[in-house]
Amino acid sequence: MISFKNDYSEGAHNIILERIQKENSIQNIGYGEDEHCKKAAECIQKQLDCYDCDVHFLVGGTQTNLVMISHCLKPYQAVIAADSGHINVHETGAIEATGHKVIAMPSKEGKLDVQAVQKALDIHTDEHMVQPKMVYVSNPTEVGTLYTKKELESLSDFCKQHHLIFYLDGARMASALASKYNDITITDYSKLVDLLYLGGTKCGALFGEALVIFKRELNEDFRFSMKQKGAMLAKGWLLGIQFETLFEGELYQKTGEHANAMAEKIKNAIEQKGYSFQFTPCSNQLFPILPNTVLQKLEKEFLFTDWEKIDNNHTSVRIVTSWATKEENVQKLIKQIEQS
Amino acid sequence: MISFKNDYSEGAHNIILERIQKENSIQNIGYGEDEHCKKAAECIQKQLDCYDCDVHFLVGGTQTNLVMISHCLKPYQAVIAADSGHINVHETGAIEATGHKVIAMPSKEGKLDVQAVQKALDIHTDEHMVQPKMVYVSNPTEVGTLYTKKELESLSDFCKQHHLIFYLDGARMASALASKYNDITITDYSKLVDLLYLGGTKCGALFGEALVIFKRELNEDFRFSMKQKGAMLAKGWLLGIQFETLFEGELYQKTGEHANAMAEKIKNAIEQKGYSFQFTPCSNQLFPILPNTVLQKLEKEFLFTDWEKIDNNHTSVRIVTSWATKEENVQKLIKQIEQS
Amino acid sequence: MISFKNDYSEGAHNIILERIQKENSIQNIGYGEDEHCKKAAECIQKQLDCYDCDVHFLVGGTQTNLVMISHCLKPYQAVIAADSGHINVHETGAIEATGHKVIAMPSKEGKLDVQAVQKALDIHTDEHMVQPKMVYVSNPTEVGTLYTKKELESLSDFCKQHHLIFYLDGARMASALASKYNDITITDYSKLVDLLYLGGTKCGALFGEALVIFKRELNEDFRFSMKQKGAMLAKGWLLGIQFETLFEGELYQKTGEHANAMAEKIKNAIEQKGYSFQFTPCSNQLFPILPNTVLQKLEKEFLFTDWEKIDNNHTSVRIVTSWATKEENVQKLIKQIEQS
Amino acid sequence: MISFKNDYSEGAHNIILERIQKENSIQNIGYGEDEHCKKAAECIQKQLDCYDCDVHFLVGGTQTNLVMISHCLKPYQAVIAADSGHINVHETGAIEATGHKVIAMPSKEGKLDVQAVQKALDIHTDEHMVQPKMVYVSNPTEVGTLYTKKELESLSDFCKQHHLIFYLDGARMASALASKYNDITITDYSKLVDLLYLGGTKCGALFGEALVIFKRELNEDFRFSMKQKGAMLAKGWLLGIQFETLFEGELYQKTGEHANAMAEKIKNAIEQKGYSFQFTPCSNQLFPILPNTVLQKLEKEFLFTDWEKIDNNHTSVRIVTSWATKEENVQKLIKQIEQS
Repeated sequence: MISFKNDYSEGAHNIILERIQKENSIQNIGYGEDEHCKKAAECIQKQLDCYDCDVHFLVGGTQTNLVMISHCLKPYQAVIAADSGHINVHETGAIEATGHKVIAMPSKEGKLDVQAVQKALDIHTDEHMVQPKMVYVSNPTEVGTLYTKKELESLSDFCKQHHLIFYLDGARMASALASKYNDITITDYSKLVDLLYLGGTKCGALFGEALVIFKRELNEDFRFSMKQKGAMLAKGWLLGIQFETLFEGELYQKTGEHANAMAEKIKNAIEQKGYSFQFTPCSNQLFPILPNTVLQKLEKEFLFTDWEKIDNNHTSVRIVTSWATKEENVQKLIKQIEQS
Repeated sequence: MISFKNDYSEGAHNIILERIQKENSIQNIGYGEDEHCKKAAECIQKQLDCYDCDVHFLVGGTQTNLVMISHCLKPYQAVIAADSGHINVHETGAIEATGHKVIAMPSKEGKLDVQAVQKALDIHTDEHMVQPKMVYVSNPTEVGTLYTKKELESLSDFCKQHHLIFYLDGARMASALASKYNDITITDYSKLVDLLYLGGTKCGALFGEALVIFKRELNEDFRFSMKQKGAMLAKGWLLGIQFETLFEGELYQKTGEHANAMAEKIKNAIEQKGYSFQFTPCSNQLFPILPNTVLQKLEKEFLFTDWEKIDNNHTSVRIVTSWATKEENVQKLIKQIEQS
Repeated sequence: MISFKNDYSEGAHNIILERIQKENSIQNIGYGEDEHCKKAAECIQKQLDCYDCDVHFLVGGTQTNLVMISHCLKPYQAVIAADSGHINVHETGAIEATGHKVIAMPSKEGKLDVQAVQKALDIHTDEHMVQPKMVYVSNPTEVGTLYTKKELESLSDFCKQHHLIFYLDGARMASALASKYNDITITDYSKLVDLLYLGGTKCGALFGEALVIFKRELNEDFRFSMKQKGAMLAKGWLLGIQFETLFEGELYQKTGEHANAMAEKIKNAIEQKGYSFQFTPCSNQLFPILPNTVLQKLEKEFLFTDWEKIDNNHTSVRIVTSWATKEENVQKLIKQIEQS
Repeated sequence: MISFKNDYSEGAHNIILERIQKENSIQNIGYGEDEHCKKAAECIQKQLDCYDCDVHFLVGGTQTNLVMISHCLKPYQAVIAADSGHINVHETGAIEATGHKVIAMPSKEGKLDVQAVQKALDIHTDEHMVQPKMVYVSNPTEVGTLYTKKELESLSDFCKQHHLIFYLDGARMASALASKYNDITITDYSKLVDLLYLGGTKCGALFGEALVIFKRELNEDFRFSMKQKGAMLAKGWLLGIQFETLFEGELYQKTGEHANAMAEKIKNAIEQKGYSFQFTPCSNQLFPILPNTVLQKLEKEFLFTDWEKIDNNHTSVRIVTSWATKEENVQKLIKQIEQS
């Protein structure tokens, strides 16, 4: 079976694995205080064109979200997210387990807008309710769509105005940055958000996520929170090497470009057959609505995720490509779609 | 500088890295539900000579402890540990952050005994106090000593009698198993403890810890706890491959043997100079008490950790070896000790 | 100003205050282990016609909810509630602060139905999501409506079938029991729910809530949870006396009858003026939709709560009566309504 | 049986109960925003001779401690207490349940000193350990002793110097203030501590505790924490009236004087018989060491708490007096002691 189920089925980009191999027998200081983490942070700062920020490296996405969010909020404060947001749905209550309510607001195309955030503020008026203090968005969203620069600017302005911390989960940021539908450059982010998570696991790294804290007061004692939540890797230099490799040149961008190019080919084949999409295709995740008869054929050779029953004869599915997706497998899928 | 500071300065044993390299471009199912995790679990079961148990793979030690302990305890229950136990001292309150008190009891040579556990029960008598429900020990202990089989049996019997869950943290288990001072075989553990953590990070793996749940009722929904605490690696097969490699043959044992052999040489050199140890040397951690004048010389070339001021002229230090320790570096250290 | 803002503006029913006075200088055992608590529990059991249950006394509603819910759930389990449920909206994230997600489902007239609970189960399918384990309903609901016996039976059957704990928050139960729109007797509850909270604060007591645990396995160590959450009153006998007084005869029922009778009069006056209600009036809370011009007049003399803007000229408000509401004040309000 | 078991066996001082009775049918605003709470706060400020502070009213001691401490600390911060401190021993892990470690330090006569606090700081050096941020002391202590002004000044200076929040639990403050062994006036406290809890439950109130926040930045959003933890009484004015009554004149002082006078008589009788005390008698709690033969006789008529086995023939017990202790009962106890 060929899997289009997710973007973490394979290991790491070869260049990364080679670098780990090369460093393997060299002694490094533990817990992220090594030279590789330092250099990786510098590379990220350079690409962001922002040096007034702190960078930390963690192992996984749920971990990154729960450590950062619980670090920022006081016990009675809450985070606003789209109802489709990863922290609201797919993290087994990780944020609530640290004591905080996720205020889930209705969303369109996986995106939160200023109206939704304003409404969340409107209904939380006094000490009998939680106090909204953070806004969480994902870009790309969980349904593969992208925020426009204008949309993020609106949210950003609103957050500043209302003293809300603005946190952007970029688990698939490489795909966002490389998308032809994207109008936000990496250097824009330091002006837009307070906290930025640049994903590695789904963007060419073996594992690992980089967390950039632009609002530096939120960095105070952050390493205590990392350690307490089991998120400080003993061999932290492993994370350092990977992000150094991804960000010292164009590698991060390239992993996104490949993933997007593979998705675009599949998207075109689906469109040519006249099928539509549940969410606008923008990045490495596609959500086509396919006839069940077609799906039954595809499922014999390919793995992907059933998303939602649309009607008795149609279902939307999630098809994901990545830096590791082989063109030959994409061609096989396209051929099957064309013949269906 | 040559580091004897810890056993996680280098990467992974070469065989492990090669296996990761080999698997790197093959698609695997995510979140630990792949074939490698399955095979690794079977290898561990075989070495334990116990098939009536569940095996999970996590990323780090603090993480493993906090996920397992919080999974087992009801909100008002507490875990008893030696005052020198890792969960009491060096995990930034990770257990308390999940809501549970660590009842720290006085210890000798880093070891908890039945008398201490009995005392903890004696002083917790009703609902105005926490309810002790788990006993946590480390073997090797945080100060490098080993429990005897008789000592663990006594604790084990006591726990069974008092319905206490018995959890053993074996972050450095390879060193315990390979020690000539050890009288507990790996096949003994299924009869001794309810929960066993077999360390990888400090025993030849790139990263990762294996958790064996002998008391199967404690396994119910354990994967929910893993996910919630950010401890379920997306590319879980990375952990599977590593533990498969460590436990399919003798590799785990061998990493411990090398670490111990290196420690033994250093220990002999120290003893021959007439210096004593703060804790009995048994495994890959040594705590010699050295004259400060000697330390000042050693610190020019070697890294290790100051442990405790013994008197105005003497300090105990922690010297750690590992599977990766180079014999030539050990010889350099010995030479310096001899010349001091 | 005359307040119809809530049902806790006054102290206690005279009979209760007299009993406290009488007992005041007698020595009682602490922490709810006294004779009054014992007798109060027996009185409640008798009225419930169920002796196979445990009864505890706590101080307030948010406290009762957070202690009971956190006592029952494992860390990754969640409670399903109507989106209008007290625990979801008006307890400052108290449930989340104990680590648990409140799964808020859309509701009609403040009521949860089987379809909503089924949907909550449908979207929580594996360990990447929280595990629904409890269903929380309020009767009367937060908007003054009542469940029918058939509705509660459906929920009850569904919960049993799906191993969900069924918890009913009856902060205003006296009003439900005394309502002419109610078809559930107090003796029905032992067959319907696992956990029942019988409110005192809003039903004639000075303060205090009674918690009945029908599913006795959930009672294990419950007093540990009470103490840990600061919910075990040192002078617990104060609670015992109050519930003894409320339940040894008809007092609890009577406090509800008075509150409902006062509400009914107001309701009739509103209806006669041709105004409608946002939620069906059934108990001691009314939510009339009034012209803003009328409201401006009423607000000069009376206190109540603005609920929702209905259109540019109309607003719904919450008017609450209680055991303590004076008929003369009701007549004054009616007169104003009639003249408006 | 006559109880000397604790100081919460009876209800409230008559004057307090009369005031509640008088106010019972008057409508008050809920949740502590009423005129009585406002006046009570002003009375307390006047007695403290400090108007630059906030005052809140809560229901019980464990509740007060857990709400205040969890409000102040960041997730990785800890509170230092004497090992005999109430939060360490007798609150069922209430502080840990909010996520924070209690760093328990050895104490003498129930008192923490600067050396112990310094040592706690010394052993918590980096992000692998919790961060000590608060110092908790009780006065009177849990064993009835009193801090001298000099002792509290030393701790206070140390806390200021090291940016530690200094919290004083005065559950039995009336007894401290009224003690002839005490050299700290109520007006001293605003200069000594950041947070002061003035107990009501054990000092003449029916129930309730007053919390004074001198360090006003810690007051920000405190009512959110109160509500979230179930500590905001709906009929908050009940607490207001009680503290108004206790602090508008000399009543608080007088409840302490009576309790101490009763204890002093018992103390003298014990001393005259040549028995010693486990802890220096200073307030309304006595810990005499009595022959077991004497105890057996006393236990036929009196209730008190066994404290510790001293040797095979002697046991220390806890004897507590209060504002409600009747002189005739004290005389009966004295007579029995004299005859023993």
